[in-house]
Amino acid sequence: MARLAGVSRATVSYVLNNTSAVRISEPTRRRVHEAAKELGYVPHAAARSLRAGHSRLVLMPAPSFPAGPLYSRFLGDLQLALGRLDYTVVQHGSIGLHGDEAARAWAELRPVAVLVSGSGLGPKGVTVLKRSGARAVVSLGPDSVEGAHALLMDYEAVGHSAGRHLYDRGRRRIGVVVPQECGLESFSAPRLEGVRRALHGTDATLTELPLAYTEESAARLAARWRDLGLDAVFAYNDEYAMLLMRALADEGVRVPADTAVIGADDLMLGRLLRPRLSTVHIELPSGRDLAELVDRAVRDPGTAPETHKVLGATVVHRESS
Amino acid sequence: MARLAGVSRATVSYVLNNTSAVRISEPTRRRVHEAAKELGYVPHAAARSLRAGHSRLVLMPAPSFPAGPLYSRFLGDLQLALGRLDYTVVQHGSIGLHGDEAARAWAELRPVAVLVSGSGLGPKGVTVLKRSGARAVVSLGPDSVEGAHALLMDYEAVGHSAGRHLYDRGRRRIGVVVPQECGLESFSAPRLEGVRRALHGTDATLTELPLAYTEESAARLAARWRDLGLDAVFAYNDEYAMLLMRALADEGVRVPADTAVIGADDLMLGRLLRPRLSTVHIELPSGRDLAELVDRAVRDPGTAPETHKVLGATVVHRESS
Repeated sequence: MARLAGVSRATVSYVLNNTSAVRISEPTRRRVHEAAKELGYVPHAAARSLRAGHSRLVLMPAPSFPAGPLYSRFLGDLQLALGRLDYTVVQHGSIGLHGDEAARAWAELRPVAVLVSGSGLGPKGVTVLKRSGARAVVSLGPDSVEGAHALLMDYEAVGHSAGRHLYDRGRRRIGVVVPQECGLESFSAPRLEGVRRALHGTDATLTELPLAYTEESAARLAARWRDLGLDAVFAYNDEYAMLLMRALADEGVRVPADTAVIGADDLMLGRLLRPRLSTVHIELPSGRDLAELVDRAVRDPGTAPETHKVLGATVVHRESS
Repeated sequence: MARLAGVSRATVSYVLNNTSAVRISEPTRRRVHEAAKELGYVPHAAARSLRAGHSRLVLMPAPSFPAGPLYSRFLGDLQLALGRLDYTVVQHGSIGLHGDEAARAWAELRPVAVLVSGSGLGPKGVTVLKRSGARAVVSLGPDSVEGAHALLMDYEAVGHSAGRHLYDRGRRRIGVVVPQECGLESFSAPRLEGVRRALHGTDATLTELPLAYTEESAARLAARWRDLGLDAVFAYNDEYAMLLMRALADEGVRVPADTAVIGADDLMLGRLLRPRLSTVHIELPSGRDLAELVDRAVRDPGTAPETHKVLGATVVHRESS
């Protein structure tokens, strides 16, 4: 490669390792890079990070599949924004691994930053990651973790808005759908708690409604709807709301006359339904803002962990409530 | 660590590096691993792969977000199955990178296997990956790539089934929705081609219908529906079908009396619609089968590239067609 570029071997090494201690002119750098490309040279990220002591690798959680289109899009935007800041973004599923055990698996890759979502990482896991060279650990979810930056996603606010809205519409016997699918507890428990908080000290009652995302489960729930005596339901999100509304229609339950329904996520789906579905619009942080927070934390790993509340919840009132 | 485990430093090194040249008893191994755990030792995947000459790292494409729930679930299952075979699975977005340029970025991570989907990887990219130590490159998509194993996803079959079904139902003026969203061409072009093939040599006509996934775009298309004079439409997938059916209903176009509609993907959504949506059920390969193919290819990198057709398409006839 040195021969092709017409420079010394040492120069090739300096250029390819991006050594800043040695000054090399721009045209020489370009010649070396062109020769490298022509020869099909690929730097070894692992070797490079061993030399540099840290990598540009950011681990972020892979979208867990029941999480819905809104959250998946947010993770997609974040990945794009980190890529633009020249990080190598890699998504790491935590399949079969939990909490601190997952942290050890991630630490093996020696990432410079790790984003974790909602899943039981403890202070010990954060320590393992930091000791392995992670300059920033950022938790995304309803809880903060000691030693990590936290972007608190306040899903209680979603439930609170929905519960408040139904109460304000004059409803007093309020059901809350609790999905039975694995991996949704960290989203659904705080939503339920938010409704509870909104109704606390009022004359309204709250009924938990376990529901799997199947037509059979929805039909069973709808079949005992009149016995439940509910006049409103917060259906967890728009997809569960659509499933439940269809089952209620099949049972002759009128929406909103007999039962008001509100979902969450503000999917296009809800606008296409008749009656049009009321929903809680959720504002997630922009991928760019979050990428910049990660970048700041990487540049200045000494700063104390920051906590930001990052979730906005606004009711969009349509026809179903 | 040697002190804690009560063994020599060399033994610790042999155990943690999993050296097979030296025989070490199981109890000793266990003592070393326990000491390592207690001290919070995390092996460096990069260093380990430098020593071993290859890694257990498998790169697979991150689900690109417009790809829909079916394909996302398939990628999720695959990730799970590879994890069970003890690979470290990492999803790599190809954001901002295409084809051989993406291959160079992936090669830097020195994966033992790379799965790529649809997006313009050429024989040169395959060579770069192999020269960097990838023992298996597997393409997932409508086309095969020289030098790589291919799992051919024959999306033409989806369009062919839909076109054939509409023709068999007596329809002759058939529209095909072509989504305007980026990243869907590699799915939509073959579907269109499949319909074309199904209608070839018949008395039926085919009309391409560009459609963005917005209510406005659907309303514009529905407004000129009667001028188009179509008696059937293959709506690309169930989500576009729902969007279009709503817009057609608002224009007073009756489904299926005036226009038959068929989607694809067999989402639950379609069963919830009224009329119930006809659809093409798509059978993707099981994550486990695909993981085993990857594992075989890694163990025996010398085998000639295999090509498997892996996509089944079956019409599910409901009320809309």
